[in-house]
Amino acid sequence: MAILFASSVDDPEAWRAAFAARAPDVDMRVWPETGSLADIDAALVWRPEAGMLAGLPALKVVFSLGAGVDHIFADDTLPGVPVVRLVDPALTSQMVEYVALAVLHRHRRMDDYRAFQARREWRQLPACDTASRRVGIMGLGEIGRACANALAGLGFPVAGWRRGPGRVDGIECFHGADGLAPFLARTDILVCLLPLTRLTEGILDAALFAGLPPDAYVVNASRGGLQVEADLMAALDSGRLSGAWLDVCRHEPLPPSSPLWRHPRVTLTPHIAGQVLPETAVEQVADNLRRVRAGLAPRHVVDPARGY
Amino acid sequence: MAILFASSVDDPEAWRAAFAARAPDVDMRVWPETGSLADIDAALVWRPEAGMLAGLPALKVVFSLGAGVDHIFADDTLPGVPVVRLVDPALTSQMVEYVALAVLHRHRRMDDYRAFQARREWRQLPACDTASRRVGIMGLGEIGRACANALAGLGFPVAGWRRGPGRVDGIECFHGADGLAPFLARTDILVCLLPLTRLTEGILDAALFAGLPPDAYVVNASRGGLQVEADLMAALDSGRLSGAWLDVCRHEPLPPSSPLWRHPRVTLTPHIAGQVLPETAVEQVADNLRRVRAGLAPRHVVDPARGY
Repeated sequence: MAILFASSVDDPEAWRAAFAARAPDVDMRVWPETGSLADIDAALVWRPEAGMLAGLPALKVVFSLGAGVDHIFADDTLPGVPVVRLVDPALTSQMVEYVALAVLHRHRRMDDYRAFQARREWRQLPACDTASRRVGIMGLGEIGRACANALAGLGFPVAGWRRGPGRVDGIECFHGADGLAPFLARTDILVCLLPLTRLTEGILDAALFAGLPPDAYVVNASRGGLQVEADLMAALDSGRLSGAWLDVCRHEPLPPSSPLWRHPRVTLTPHIAGQVLPETAVEQVADNLRRVRAGLAPRHVVDPARGY
Repeated sequence: MAILFASSVDDPEAWRAAFAARAPDVDMRVWPETGSLADIDAALVWRPEAGMLAGLPALKVVFSLGAGVDHIFADDTLPGVPVVRLVDPALTSQMVEYVALAVLHRHRRMDDYRAFQARREWRQLPACDTASRRVGIMGLGEIGRACANALAGLGFPVAGWRRGPGRVDGIECFHGADGLAPFLARTDILVCLLPLTRLTEGILDAALFAGLPPDAYVVNASRGGLQVEADLMAALDSGRLSGAWLDVCRHEPLPPSSPLWRHPRVTLTPHIAGQVLPETAVEQVADNLRRVRAGLAPRHVVDPARGY
């Protein structure tokens, strides 16, 4: 039995070392050097080539190398085995840091202060009242809930929006199509942490931006496919949005021709909000691999119909 | 009885409205329109003109319009009445936000990512391990302790340094001259929240920077008089420091000729880390005024010998 590793962005040697340290019995092979295909009962992947997983006759489980699984379901030939998303406390902590950084940057008007600094202007703006800066989180999974709690702890009024009903202590929750308009209307800083699915693709569009109050700010730390970049640029250029902080783009790497690179109100990072650390993430993979090989169901399996 | 308001940066009308709402019996006068000097039993000041306070024969107490009081003790003719610093939970929260923003900016390498964005370069750096990014807080008063706790809550290993011995739960504490070297040696991100006194003036100098590990980062959110700006520039230019985030300067406003404005590794804000909000800060002033007028000692009186 062996696990097949396939990713163009993750370091196979770091994963090999992590398995060696925490689960030395695991035989890890790196695509395309599979050895005998009949050995491969598991795959650990990021954006696998279409058809690769379908070519593994003994495959029992697919592990995502990230919190999202859209990059796996993008393959139409995906076999019907359980797909497992990565749930790693270290990844969640990184996301909380990143979202707190983006929200505090907007809250404390750092786009303005950086512009003042660039023109050597010592100019104080009025104090920012945290209790009246309303943060809204789209997506209340593991990461969304952790971000909501951290921001509420800093004193921001936080609400969340999710597909179906649900409760999170201390967070005002909205849900479904009917809940979207009232959620947007009370949201000054929108943080998008939704999974990318057929239903959420392109959700950050002109209609959504129009539902936010004036001066709203958008943070996308999830997937570029959620945003319509032409609509985002138009909303930034018209002043409808006061700025955006993006960790993701529709096409990654972002093409040099994109106007997002140079917009003075856009902060752009190269999909680093949550970087998987093999040393911590290996625990969940190794544990789930043991479960599958023992005939048990793995934990954190995705519902293929929902896509998360 | 009347309180004399004197500040070139705070808005007297906002304070007048705050007193009217919370303590309508208070007669507030705005320097230089004092009316009868014999009425003035209290002063509420930011950087008062030298000699102004000495000219108030009935003065019983001086309130600072900030958390620090160095701007009051700078007056050699200061009469021997109690000097009270401002302790306002809203001010403390603002400081926590500001310090968290600066620390997360450094931790998540935003100077690098902003430089990459400026040249349209999509480039991921290795993940940042929060558990090995050591934050050190100089000054463990009300604000320093709140910042230390917030940063420890985000997962950073946090230590503090103070003049005399003391304990803060969950924070490794160093103190005094002997404790400074070991404190600096374990500090990757140094956050200065010390009061400005005769002992701390110029403490952020070449010798101190030399005691930090390579790539250390300095945040000063307290007073410009704590930093030797020529030493700071030299440490930044030589790469001894990886960057600095400053809310304060030796001379404010910072002169246009200062090289700090345009250093690519310096973030500069115009003394806005903690902006006093009259609506909340008025509570402590009005309460202390009542105490003094009832013959009681005010709260949060500064020790003139220590200067904080």
